[in-house]
Amino acid sequence: MTDRKIPWTIHGALWLAMTGLASAATTATAPAAPATPAQPAKATPSVSEILNAAPASAWRPLADEHTVYMQLAAGRVVIELEPALAPHTVAAIEKLVRMHYFEGAVVVRVQDNYVAQWSVPGTPPDESKPVPADMRTLAAEFSVPAGAAPFTVLPDRDGFAPESGFVDSFPAARDPAAGRMWLTHCYGAVGVGRDNDPASGNGSELYAVIGHAPRHLDGNVTVVGRVRQGIELLSSLPRGGPPMGMYAAPSERVPIASTRMAADVPAAERSHLEVLRTDTPTYAAVLDARRNRRDDWYVHPAGYIDICNAPLPVRTMR
Amino acid sequence: MTDRKIPWTIHGALWLAMTGLASAATTATAPAAPATPAQPAKATPSVSEILNAAPASAWRPLADEHTVYMQLAAGRVVIELEPALAPHTVAAIEKLVRMHYFEGAVVVRVQDNYVAQWSVPGTPPDESKPVPADMRTLAAEFSVPAGAAPFTVLPDRDGFAPESGFVDSFPAARDPAAGRMWLTHCYGAVGVGRDNDPASGNGSELYAVIGHAPRHLDGNVTVVGRVRQGIELLSSLPRGGPPMGMYAAPSERVPIASTRMAADVPAAERSHLEVLRTDTPTYAAVLDARRNRRDDWYVHPAGYIDICNAPLPVRTMR
Repeated sequence: MTDRKIPWTIHGALWLAMTGLASAATTATAPAAPATPAQPAKATPSVSEILNAAPASAWRPLADEHTVYMQLAAGRVVIELEPALAPHTVAAIEKLVRMHYFEGAVVVRVQDNYVAQWSVPGTPPDESKPVPADMRTLAAEFSVPAGAAPFTVLPDRDGFAPESGFVDSFPAARDPAAGRMWLTHCYGAVGVGRDNDPASGNGSELYAVIGHAPRHLDGNVTVVGRVRQGIELLSSLPRGGPPMGMYAAPSERVPIASTRMAADVPAAERSHLEVLRTDTPTYAAVLDARRNRRDDWYVHPAGYIDICNAPLPVRTMR
Repeated sequence: MTDRKIPWTIHGALWLAMTGLASAATTATAPAAPATPAQPAKATPSVSEILNAAPASAWRPLADEHTVYMQLAAGRVVIELEPALAPHTVAAIEKLVRMHYFEGAVVVRVQDNYVAQWSVPGTPPDESKPVPADMRTLAAEFSVPAGAAPFTVLPDRDGFAPESGFVDSFPAARDPAAGRMWLTHCYGAVGVGRDNDPASGNGSELYAVIGHAPRHLDGNVTVVGRVRQGIELLSSLPRGGPPMGMYAAPSERVPIASTRMAADVPAAERSHLEVLRTDTPTYAAVLDARRNRRDDWYVHPAGYIDICNAPLPVRTMR
């Protein structure tokens, strides 16, 4: 008896060819009637085939000058920040990292299907270690002007925003009428905790999304980047107590041994990662393959992808 | 310095009143112009206020005759099955539970942002313990006729289906043109692993969703129910290796001490849980409160909810 399982990897089989059906999305990308005799139907490539065939230019290295390494006992969490969509907040976080503010940081909160959150405990009665006086408030960057960075629109409609898509391999959304864009709260997104005052999120308390995308936070928090590697080190942590997932006792908190900018780490110790560029034909092909799975296992292609279900391939640099 | 955090609970503050704006959803539910003099604006209730004020009839107990208790060392996972949407598969699972087929079951796979999956290892060379000969195949129940159960439509548009909504407090979707309905792959959904043959999912290998809703599985797997309590016991397990999250060594697998139907457990040992009915005005109010958060912390109400982001409150019976 074989091991039954639901699939994750794509095996490159041809559901479309087997059934004779074609989805609207596939039809839309089919070439117009060729002037030359029709070629035999080409096998629709799998995601791994697409990635293996991609040119080197379809990938980009992580920006080490904007990448944070957060070291847990279980391993390294690699967070790439996106200064184009939160310039002042990203700059503040990088400054805090470089002034060693995060020494003594711990994961203080893990709420199931929501977030893992970390900060530096203060000396009582301060719950959090104070940041320098001139860094205590920071104007909110819940969105930025729509022209702040090139935006690759996802054709699939989004419930939370007029448009969803990608900015430099980060999931994002855009409101053309309002002229604004922002990073979306997808799995792995990193955002800035704050009090009720929108200017209270100074970057000293951060969280990563570890559950179904809490998109209702879009426009309410400054999202600064994405965990590119090691999100499972946060998502598999023990959950804190209800209702917010705060660890009740300091002893439950998970130590963060170090927080460093990748650019400050000796080259030999860096995580040499590349992320697939989202503004490439390669990525468009990946999305199409994921919208309509064509391997033998699938009998019903979704014909749709949502911004937080779109894969963002990361690989170790070759 | 207070502890900055992103909120989960609703505190009942009045974002709408504070800003003078009203969302379409709120306007739609406002009463028509009253014949009597206008009352002072009523405070928009929070989710907890809505739940506290709900009549007993807004809740229903879990159906113990269709509820499975899966005991891990860390606690009990409570899975409520929905026979209306997968009658033959649910019956097969209940039969397997009652014949003690699941003795020796283990979690074999935990893939980050996807699923935790369990089954009973077989005696080599069988990877899985065989089920009785007459139970080895079972017709797929990827969807059922749209009239199989009452459906409460969510007004918010869905990307994956013509309609999303709820069946008896389970997230679901419906295609009126095709006359079909099905349970959706939301966080906590429980489905039936299978091989390529759609009839190979006999209920002996099950999984729970522990990540962003893999809605592309809708229509490809028989979903049988939902984890009503204890999903965090599965979602916080160590992840297995790439690419599928299978634990490499048998020693890594997580034992399931027992699998029982709640109805077969002495009353004193049962989890006496109730779930909020999704076909009630109470639940409509909860959804409205979640679509447009009105507490002080929020500055941007989403105006939208997606089927897998809608809360499904569960409480211990009073």
